[in-house]
Amino acid sequence: MSDRIPAAVLGATGMVGQYFVSLLANHPWFSLDAVVASDRSAGKRYADACRWLLSADMPEQARNLEVSPLRAELSARVVFSALPSDVAGAVEVDYAKRGHMVFSNASSHRMDPLVPLLVPEVNHAHAAVLHEQRRQKGWSGFIVTNPNCSSAVLVSALHPLQQAFGLERVMVTTLQAVSGAGYPGLSSLDILDNAVPYIGGEEAKMESEPLKMLGSFSDGALHPANFKVSAHCNRVATRDGHLECVSVTLGADASLDDVAQAFRAYTSLPQELNLPTAPPRPVILRTEPDRPQTRLDRDAGNGMATSVGRLRECSLLGIKFVALGSNTMRGAAGGSVLNAELLKVQGLLD
Amino acid sequence: MSDRIPAAVLGATGMVGQYFVSLLANHPWFSLDAVVASDRSAGKRYADACRWLLSADMPEQARNLEVSPLRAELSARVVFSALPSDVAGAVEVDYAKRGHMVFSNASSHRMDPLVPLLVPEVNHAHAAVLHEQRRQKGWSGFIVTNPNCSSAVLVSALHPLQQAFGLERVMVTTLQAVSGAGYPGLSSLDILDNAVPYIGGEEAKMESEPLKMLGSFSDGALHPANFKVSAHCNRVATRDGHLECVSVTLGADASLDDVAQAFRAYTSLPQELNLPTAPPRPVILRTEPDRPQTRLDRDAGNGMATSVGRLRECSLLGIKFVALGSNTMRGAAGGSVLNAELLKVQGLLD
Amino acid sequence: MSDRIPAAVLGATGMVGQYFVSLLANHPWFSLDAVVASDRSAGKRYADACRWLLSADMPEQARNLEVSPLRAELSARVVFSALPSDVAGAVEVDYAKRGHMVFSNASSHRMDPLVPLLVPEVNHAHAAVLHEQRRQKGWSGFIVTNPNCSSAVLVSALHPLQQAFGLERVMVTTLQAVSGAGYPGLSSLDILDNAVPYIGGEEAKMESEPLKMLGSFSDGALHPANFKVSAHCNRVATRDGHLECVSVTLGADASLDDVAQAFRAYTSLPQELNLPTAPPRPVILRTEPDRPQTRLDRDAGNGMATSVGRLRECSLLGIKFVALGSNTMRGAAGGSVLNAELLKVQGLLD
Amino acid sequence: MSDRIPAAVLGATGMVGQYFVSLLANHPWFSLDAVVASDRSAGKRYADACRWLLSADMPEQARNLEVSPLRAELSARVVFSALPSDVAGAVEVDYAKRGHMVFSNASSHRMDPLVPLLVPEVNHAHAAVLHEQRRQKGWSGFIVTNPNCSSAVLVSALHPLQQAFGLERVMVTTLQAVSGAGYPGLSSLDILDNAVPYIGGEEAKMESEPLKMLGSFSDGALHPANFKVSAHCNRVATRDGHLECVSVTLGADASLDDVAQAFRAYTSLPQELNLPTAPPRPVILRTEPDRPQTRLDRDAGNGMATSVGRLRECSLLGIKFVALGSNTMRGAAGGSVLNAELLKVQGLLD
Repeated sequence: MSDRIPAAVLGATGMVGQYFVSLLANHPWFSLDAVVASDRSAGKRYADACRWLLSADMPEQARNLEVSPLRAELSARVVFSALPSDVAGAVEVDYAKRGHMVFSNASSHRMDPLVPLLVPEVNHAHAAVLHEQRRQKGWSGFIVTNPNCSSAVLVSALHPLQQAFGLERVMVTTLQAVSGAGYPGLSSLDILDNAVPYIGGEEAKMESEPLKMLGSFSDGALHPANFKVSAHCNRVATRDGHLECVSVTLGADASLDDVAQAFRAYTSLPQELNLPTAPPRPVILRTEPDRPQTRLDRDAGNGMATSVGRLRECSLLGIKFVALGSNTMRGAAGGSVLNAELLKVQGLLD
Repeated sequence: MSDRIPAAVLGATGMVGQYFVSLLANHPWFSLDAVVASDRSAGKRYADACRWLLSADMPEQARNLEVSPLRAELSARVVFSALPSDVAGAVEVDYAKRGHMVFSNASSHRMDPLVPLLVPEVNHAHAAVLHEQRRQKGWSGFIVTNPNCSSAVLVSALHPLQQAFGLERVMVTTLQAVSGAGYPGLSSLDILDNAVPYIGGEEAKMESEPLKMLGSFSDGALHPANFKVSAHCNRVATRDGHLECVSVTLGADASLDDVAQAFRAYTSLPQELNLPTAPPRPVILRTEPDRPQTRLDRDAGNGMATSVGRLRECSLLGIKFVALGSNTMRGAAGGSVLNAELLKVQGLLD
Repeated sequence: MSDRIPAAVLGATGMVGQYFVSLLANHPWFSLDAVVASDRSAGKRYADACRWLLSADMPEQARNLEVSPLRAELSARVVFSALPSDVAGAVEVDYAKRGHMVFSNASSHRMDPLVPLLVPEVNHAHAAVLHEQRRQKGWSGFIVTNPNCSSAVLVSALHPLQQAFGLERVMVTTLQAVSGAGYPGLSSLDILDNAVPYIGGEEAKMESEPLKMLGSFSDGALHPANFKVSAHCNRVATRDGHLECVSVTLGADASLDDVAQAFRAYTSLPQELNLPTAPPRPVILRTEPDRPQTRLDRDAGNGMATSVGRLRECSLLGIKFVALGSNTMRGAAGGSVLNAELLKVQGLLD
Repeated sequence: MSDRIPAAVLGATGMVGQYFVSLLANHPWFSLDAVVASDRSAGKRYADACRWLLSADMPEQARNLEVSPLRAELSARVVFSALPSDVAGAVEVDYAKRGHMVFSNASSHRMDPLVPLLVPEVNHAHAAVLHEQRRQKGWSGFIVTNPNCSSAVLVSALHPLQQAFGLERVMVTTLQAVSGAGYPGLSSLDILDNAVPYIGGEEAKMESEPLKMLGSFSDGALHPANFKVSAHCNRVATRDGHLECVSVTLGADASLDDVAQAFRAYTSLPQELNLPTAPPRPVILRTEPDRPQTRLDRDAGNGMATSVGRLRECSLLGIKFVALGSNTMRGAAGGSVLNAELLKVQGLLD
């Protein structure tokens, strides 16, 4: 165990922070070295500072860690950030300047042209922009981001199609779980026996982040893809799992069988590298008429797989299907840890 | 009271049947005269045959009615049908032949070119096809249908836009309440902490019924509209109220303000006639960023109004918005009763 | 309308405050004259200061009221308080000193021996302590409280039994709705697919408040009843309605029929006086095997009736039954308004 | 693998049957050999006959098993029964006569004085009655039952107290998950935003089964304990996990610390024997003010541990606390499999 890479978690008391803590406490390559949170929590034992939300008990090694304040000196070079976006921007830059490798779930730097917005299966090549990032920003560390939870699910389902056929138009309507809003997030009174067709800022993220991720890296720069995404985002009374109804115009003629085959054949670098958090199959095609379903499929591949199904023709755009993934795992902490695993293998954590 | 028109309810013990019973028990123009159900219930008191599902107690005048078997002789000429579609087809024809005016919530005859699929605000003129229906089918009575619950909401929201601008393309994704599946309908295990992206037959209905309703009547025949609808239908954990995310290509240039104005200015014949079940405003435009919401808006206009909101541009189709209405009222029993009110005023119940 | 008694609402932007606003906006005896809230809201239009939570739209007459700060001068002598208890104590005293008649839903003064803890059906005679309250405290106004929501339901169900047989022991386990915690109250993550067997302070309230209410008034003082109550309080995923499982040892022999008869025969002063908010029957005995149920019965008597049912023998304590009532109506705003109606008839608002 | 004991599952297509199938497919001592179900399913592939309800996919080895009809010849001597109780009675006797060892989750034979109602931690000694069962009934096989799900949780929590102090009176109010009713079980319309204070037959089971289990075995017969249990049973909107509010009069003086110590010190034979399905700690005492909670604690010990907490004084009975366990694991399939493990170690499966 002694050769595991120590890692710190920023925003460790929040819900995504707790997922980071859980994942690191049981990780073969990283170890949980420090927990960082706001001044309100700093100085307390993690077990006292944190209202633990996960059903598995808090990991023993986390209980007695003393919570460090934001911007505290950290011996761990690898830092996972679950900070809220109003705080994340400056704090993460601060750590990157001081030599830390920051893996951030916050939105602050996602659309920065020098910051990779990374889903290893989709755009592992984008990590190469880190060289430019360090050079232009003069940082000894770096920042890598993972996408918004609903974008993570969407882009995972779109990538096999883009590879096989190209993409021209994407319409997506989401049914998103309450955990996507963090804790306490939505009041129970706002969601019991209700659906809310609005999530602040979410549609703009879904209409921009996938284009960056499905774009290319060349000449030292990231170039966004140039198709259009239109998104309707809704909150429903589920705990975890974002379900997305997608209609797509492909860039080439393809039968439903062709599309099914593209989903089935899909695999990518993290699977080849056998990264610890990578699911065996990144995209799982379900053929039952009523799958994927939120509860039944959100934990597929330990929450890291994206399930697709209900593949059929769309009279307006071409094809339509349903995609589903875990917003807390693939869409947040798990995605970020997978990013770190990829960069370790690429030698970028040395 | 003695001059109210007696009416019977077919399928009176099911959930939609119970809504019919409730509405008729308190109706100014109709009175509840008979309840009809399957052989299992026939001969019992309604209070004993029926597992009552509504929160208001069963109306006193219904409790002691004896349940008649399907195809029983009925003295009431007006008949409301909440029969399941596998039974409704033949039974409703039987009653129409025997001179009854059948107002049906079942899908069996909806797409019959001689049967009006009626939402009074939208296509009251289609009632004129009844003349042809009687002539060609040789019935002394007739059958009038109301649309599937999710189609009712959609068509109510689309009609103002069709009138003002024309319609070219409609994409809709629904978040539908469990009551739409009747009782017992969905198992609690299928929907608690879950969303199900599949409702058998629903997408086909949503892709066809609105075209019939938004079509025209001329030369004694109904002619469907010729734009395209593509639908994704989902079930979520709400009791009542279908929420629909809609993207539309209009037939003419229109700013968001123009569209808002079309919604605001919209009124129709049932409002002019002040029909008892007609809501004062058939379409209510909400301007809050997060409305309509299922729980807050499903009872607007006593469940007979359609609320729209979140009007904004769609990068793919033109405009997008959210529509919401009660599947049990506007989308089922209430819609059917409103149809009967319209026909009464038009002299077709004499 | 001009002769309605003007009334103010303290804590008007919270959930209970909104219920007060709704009730007063449509009340035959009172009118909504002022809305009072914390400094954060003061000075704004009520429509802007308030995130409206009820499904009926905000009453028109409330929308443009300017929110007054706490302790503002109020021309209305009658004041309804929905303040949180950490603020209510001092502010309500302040208003009582300045001559206001304060009807409070807060817990601060409930157990003060000089403050009536009033449920008009149960202990209308306790209002007489107001004479002592004013004398001893030197207030020109007064404070009247209504009980905690779960106590209100319990005491309503116990009173018919106390009257008929006396009470010796009461065991109660509650299943309480999330609205009892106010807004935002419980996080959706804390209650979706969950039950929480803990509500801070609730059990102590249920074990003390009913004794005060079911006690007597004599010699100018309130004397608590001297039986024992033991309470288990739980939160479940319902929006409104507290369901309570009650086992009781009566003070006299009584068959189940005797007990049923006591419930059926029960009526009280508010019914006799026909107070506007009083339900026709304060206690409704259900005889179906599975009633009362939260959703079906919480709105009985406009949310002001308590439904009881499942009356049967308890092998340990004697009899057991289920009681259910609306925490937002009978257990909060509605109960407080009924208190004011009672005092008006008693001439105490003159 | 070849030396695992083959086992069959009766009622394999229902929800509890699916849990049996899952457990056996991954069991170190037993293997899944046959699936048995009603005539409707017989002859089909299990994958086709079964609407799979668990989130983990159906085990591969189960998919292609052909479903056998009830009473089919089975080569497996060990049989787990998830039959509905109206069918279980006769079918299980039939198999016992034919030499099968039947481990039944059905209620049919639970209260038969010759049938052990077994929770291995609580009353492993009761297995000794099987000798009498075989002798008196003349069966070459036998029947062992596990208790009703809510009784399993209760008796697990009571046993440490009975051992340490004795028991005199037990009052219990349950908040039970919908999965306890099987599939489809409760309609979503019956439980969304609702609580139902009635579960047919459940209170009678809770008031009798624990007495049998906490009784003694002597002179070849089972003798029930002679304290009293009074139960209120409620259904709430949770998927899995029965939460129980318990008040108890102990048989000896004990402080809350004494009681806490009794819970903490508790262990039993299955833990000593390290049975595969036995949880490391059968009873887990939580000291947080708001635990156990359904969602957070139902999976403790892989669903086989009972969590207790909120230990405090009861002004009526002595002490009170909350107990919680998984109705599907400890309360159904898992409990039954643990029974088989115990009997294997005791040599009763040879």
